[in-house]
Amino acid sequence: MNAPDSFATLLARTRESFPASTKSFITGSRADLRVPVRDIALTNGEVVSVYDTSGPYTDPAAIIDVKQGLQSVRGAWIAERGDTERYEGRKPVALDDGSKSEDAARLAQLRQEAAALQRQPLRAKAGANVTQMHYAKKGIITPEMEYVALRENGKREWMAQYMADAAREKRLAGNPMGALIPKIITPEFVRDEVARGRAIIPANINHPEVEPMAIGRNFLVKINANIGNSAVTSSIEEEVEKLVWAIRWGADNVMDLSTGKNIHTTRDWIVRNSPVPIGTVPIYQALEKVGGIAEDLSWEIFRDTLIEQAEQGVDYFTIHAGVRLAYIHLTAQRRTGIVSRGGSIMAKWCMAHHRESFLYTHFEDICDIMKAYDVSFSLGDGLRPGCASDANDEAQFAELHTLGELTQIAWKHDVQTMIEGPGHVPMHMIQANMTEQLKTCHEAPFYTLGPLTIDIAPGYDHIASAIGAAMIGWMGTAMLCYVTPKEHLGLPDRDDVKQGIIAYKIAAHAADVAKGHPGARARDDALSQARFDFRWQDQFNLGLDPETAQEYHDETLPKDAAKVAHFCSMCGPKFCSMKITQEVREFAAAKGVAEGDALAQGMAQKAEEFNRAGGEFYIPIQPV
Amino acid sequence: MNAPDSFATLLARTRESFPASTKSFITGSRADLRVPVRDIALTNGEVVSVYDTSGPYTDPAAIIDVKQGLQSVRGAWIAERGDTERYEGRKPVALDDGSKSEDAARLAQLRQEAAALQRQPLRAKAGANVTQMHYAKKGIITPEMEYVALRENGKREWMAQYMADAAREKRLAGNPMGALIPKIITPEFVRDEVARGRAIIPANINHPEVEPMAIGRNFLVKINANIGNSAVTSSIEEEVEKLVWAIRWGADNVMDLSTGKNIHTTRDWIVRNSPVPIGTVPIYQALEKVGGIAEDLSWEIFRDTLIEQAEQGVDYFTIHAGVRLAYIHLTAQRRTGIVSRGGSIMAKWCMAHHRESFLYTHFEDICDIMKAYDVSFSLGDGLRPGCASDANDEAQFAELHTLGELTQIAWKHDVQTMIEGPGHVPMHMIQANMTEQLKTCHEAPFYTLGPLTIDIAPGYDHIASAIGAAMIGWMGTAMLCYVTPKEHLGLPDRDDVKQGIIAYKIAAHAADVAKGHPGARARDDALSQARFDFRWQDQFNLGLDPETAQEYHDETLPKDAAKVAHFCSMCGPKFCSMKITQEVREFAAAKGVAEGDALAQGMAQKAEEFNRAGGEFYIPIQPV
Repeated sequence: MNAPDSFATLLARTRESFPASTKSFITGSRADLRVPVRDIALTNGEVVSVYDTSGPYTDPAAIIDVKQGLQSVRGAWIAERGDTERYEGRKPVALDDGSKSEDAARLAQLRQEAAALQRQPLRAKAGANVTQMHYAKKGIITPEMEYVALRENGKREWMAQYMADAAREKRLAGNPMGALIPKIITPEFVRDEVARGRAIIPANINHPEVEPMAIGRNFLVKINANIGNSAVTSSIEEEVEKLVWAIRWGADNVMDLSTGKNIHTTRDWIVRNSPVPIGTVPIYQALEKVGGIAEDLSWEIFRDTLIEQAEQGVDYFTIHAGVRLAYIHLTAQRRTGIVSRGGSIMAKWCMAHHRESFLYTHFEDICDIMKAYDVSFSLGDGLRPGCASDANDEAQFAELHTLGELTQIAWKHDVQTMIEGPGHVPMHMIQANMTEQLKTCHEAPFYTLGPLTIDIAPGYDHIASAIGAAMIGWMGTAMLCYVTPKEHLGLPDRDDVKQGIIAYKIAAHAADVAKGHPGARARDDALSQARFDFRWQDQFNLGLDPETAQEYHDETLPKDAAKVAHFCSMCGPKFCSMKITQEVREFAAAKGVAEGDALAQGMAQKAEEFNRAGGEFYIPIQPV
Repeated sequence: MNAPDSFATLLARTRESFPASTKSFITGSRADLRVPVRDIALTNGEVVSVYDTSGPYTDPAAIIDVKQGLQSVRGAWIAERGDTERYEGRKPVALDDGSKSEDAARLAQLRQEAAALQRQPLRAKAGANVTQMHYAKKGIITPEMEYVALRENGKREWMAQYMADAAREKRLAGNPMGALIPKIITPEFVRDEVARGRAIIPANINHPEVEPMAIGRNFLVKINANIGNSAVTSSIEEEVEKLVWAIRWGADNVMDLSTGKNIHTTRDWIVRNSPVPIGTVPIYQALEKVGGIAEDLSWEIFRDTLIEQAEQGVDYFTIHAGVRLAYIHLTAQRRTGIVSRGGSIMAKWCMAHHRESFLYTHFEDICDIMKAYDVSFSLGDGLRPGCASDANDEAQFAELHTLGELTQIAWKHDVQTMIEGPGHVPMHMIQANMTEQLKTCHEAPFYTLGPLTIDIAPGYDHIASAIGAAMIGWMGTAMLCYVTPKEHLGLPDRDDVKQGIIAYKIAAHAADVAKGHPGARARDDALSQARFDFRWQDQFNLGLDPETAQEYHDETLPKDAAKVAHFCSMCGPKFCSMKITQEVREFAAAKGVAEGDALAQGMAQKAEEFNRAGGEFYIPIQPV
């Protein structure tokens, strides 16, 4: 996987459907509201339908040309609201692609390739507020909200058979840990959650290609994948392909953390080709514009960068406005100080000027920009702990309290807001993070990185952090930012991205199951049933990574016969416990009781006899 | 890793020391009591010493000849007790290696190769009881107990500096969830835990090569790796190498689950070459002896098998004596029935004979055998759930209660006992398992497989289960049985074994940190400090898998210079947050405050000024 394939080859691969899968759509109250799902056809005739983040790429009917960008999904909905206007927009300048782009010719060529991706930007008409939160507070249910409702429910029909047994449902009833998840998500419920600020729908009016999704503790737990070039390596083609690859495996959101050359042009490619919300950390680009000298950053340069990115269609901005001058000294005695890039940049600026950062002092000015495009806040945790021993310290919680204050200001402007969280937190300190966030940030969605539960697993931090992610997701975190095996070591290649995403799909699903999200467990049951029935192909296809599952199986039992064999390689024909279980049932049935619960009846009776016969601890041994 | 190397090559590789590591020994009250640790030399002169399961294989001074077996560690201690006797022992018969060993010549050759591994067995003298629990109850502190105490403590000296900060220690204080872990483990504490049955030291008197270790909730959380040939594949050489490979990466125990041909001879090779306790499931071999027909099993055949394996030196037996006739019907309505091999075999026997199994009726006879060799019980959970939807059901808990009764009978005979647990359990149902086990099994050590928190991740079940393992380990489980990526799909190769072990070392360590095990966090702190200081080589070497960490790093920044560079590939020179943090500190220092806590003082003062100046939410913007 590490050898860089050609872009064309890679994209071709990412367009393949998953095994036995077809994309279908749930149509809403209007013809142009079509929510994609992936239908998996099982060998027993069942169809299992799952949430689909892969966008048009897995739709054979879709024509994909990355140099033209994706078709619009929301264009008409935005236009119909009549509260936006097209305008000339900001003129791109050379500096947008970095202060020292060594290769001007290459850049010109890249911009040329991105020419067809240029759009005249939209913004709110004077005095208008175009955020989903604004509509929600006014009681308006937008198509985006209805889309989210249909998407969260999926096709409930097939799940019913797996949830029919009342006794089992009672035994397995989840523990929502304070979440309030209705049996069926209605558009009105979505509206209410967005109005309360308990959920966000990241959807910039300049990103009509996005397939709306929600981030909130009363919805399915989502995951975010980070991509981005770097001063040290990677190319635009790789970045776009990484995006498509990431959503194929289940990334609900993608953050473009590019910090190297050609940032602006890279972003055109990514946003125009992304069906999922794109987030950025604007301070990274701003710093590029001032040659990497944090002290030289200014509100004017930052403001210009926000508008630049808002016009391109970025859906949410990580803004480290909680890094206050008075908190910086709290990090001095830490083992690993400030590990957030954005946080350390702002800390340095604050130190150099001995003033509150312009992110904090201009927060309302920032809100004014956000609401003109419906860009959501991801309030950055610039003072998050960088190791277990700095977890839950004064600096971290001081910033969290400020993020709570800023949330209320953002909400005053109807700007959608989520809160970023750590980071590195031992298991026994995770709950305190969730509790503190819910309390101080008024239930605004929590968006955490991991957390990593230990620090001694470089090369395996996707696992060390999936443990913390699953736990905090259960406790109420709405979106989990993935960690790849390369965390702390290097830049993730496409296989690392996949490994990180699968680990986080596991964490998110484990959280949904524990919370008792309606229907979440049905897919597990369908797979377990296939396992018990020896429907190997179904077992593979219902998994998060069918190819790998089949590949592992075939390593030991390559023959196709094995796919239907009533035993597997672990035990071999004689030892298979599931086969024996079936024999136990047949044995009971053979005893003349035909009912499905034959064994229950037959054995209950036998057990009774046994107990009548004394049932004492030791019974005389009879020769066998 | 999947291509089978030659045994010699493989073993050579497993004999290499870890980078910058040397094996050293902590000597106890007698010269022949030497507890191995791995000392990792850091580039800053520090030495970090870690628990070492790898045995003599990583000791350059040790002479290893797998056909001769390892040197004895405990021989003298056992002899000194004067309560054992050598005896002729049971005569191996052809059937010991399976009912239909197709290749007699091959078997003869294998036995020939194992000739030098034959030992005349030891057993307790008439009327004697040689279990560690028996000695413990009599108030005797055995060398094994002292060995365990020294091993659990390790070298505490180096940890001190990382635990010096009282405020930090208070903030990070673990939550032991009911465990009672002393600051220092004394031999007397070990004795008391073993006497109470709250810990076991698996150490068959016929396995003197074992380096004693303890399994109990007040000790470090341990992990078990399963190996074993199979009817379908693998060879003896592979099995021994898998053992050495498994302990290299950190397996505290290994279970030999061989079910195919040459079982007896394979076991000679494994036990004689293992420095860690070896567990087996004797019913597997017994079934081989009756040609795989469960109904044909008998107490006589089983008893003969127990003695056969006890004489060879197996340290613990998984015995599914809790599968009672009256419980079997409780599994009839399950989604995946009975998934434990041993459990399903016994269920079939019970069905066929409509009698309680001989494991249950002869339990005290089994105890008599166990105490004559100090074989520990691992009471099997034959009715464990095989999928999330069968978790915590009546069948599972009915068996657990019976295991509690059997535990008290075993303890009456002073036989060391641990309890096996599931399996497949969603996160929110894990605590109930631990609570029920503690209550019904009187704090006997819990030994769980995972549990897997979801069922939709075939190919990644080591991750799906590491989440559950970390949680239940924190809650009180003493040993975690690993799951590899091949779970449910095929037989693990050596890389799968490594992946499973690393995932479980992560889970076990996360549990130790959460419980607040003294010193557990020091290694994390040392690694985090190295990370902050840009001591890359130390960061790699302090990790669970130094080679992989370095390999990942070098993929992006191959040059040796990068190993000391004050930036890493993720951010590049300009963006490194840790570098900026250092600059923040220097900046503060440069302001004329020389103290180490310069920033704290300098900034606190500045922050004070700021607050005196009003510290109001919005301050007038000054031109930058």
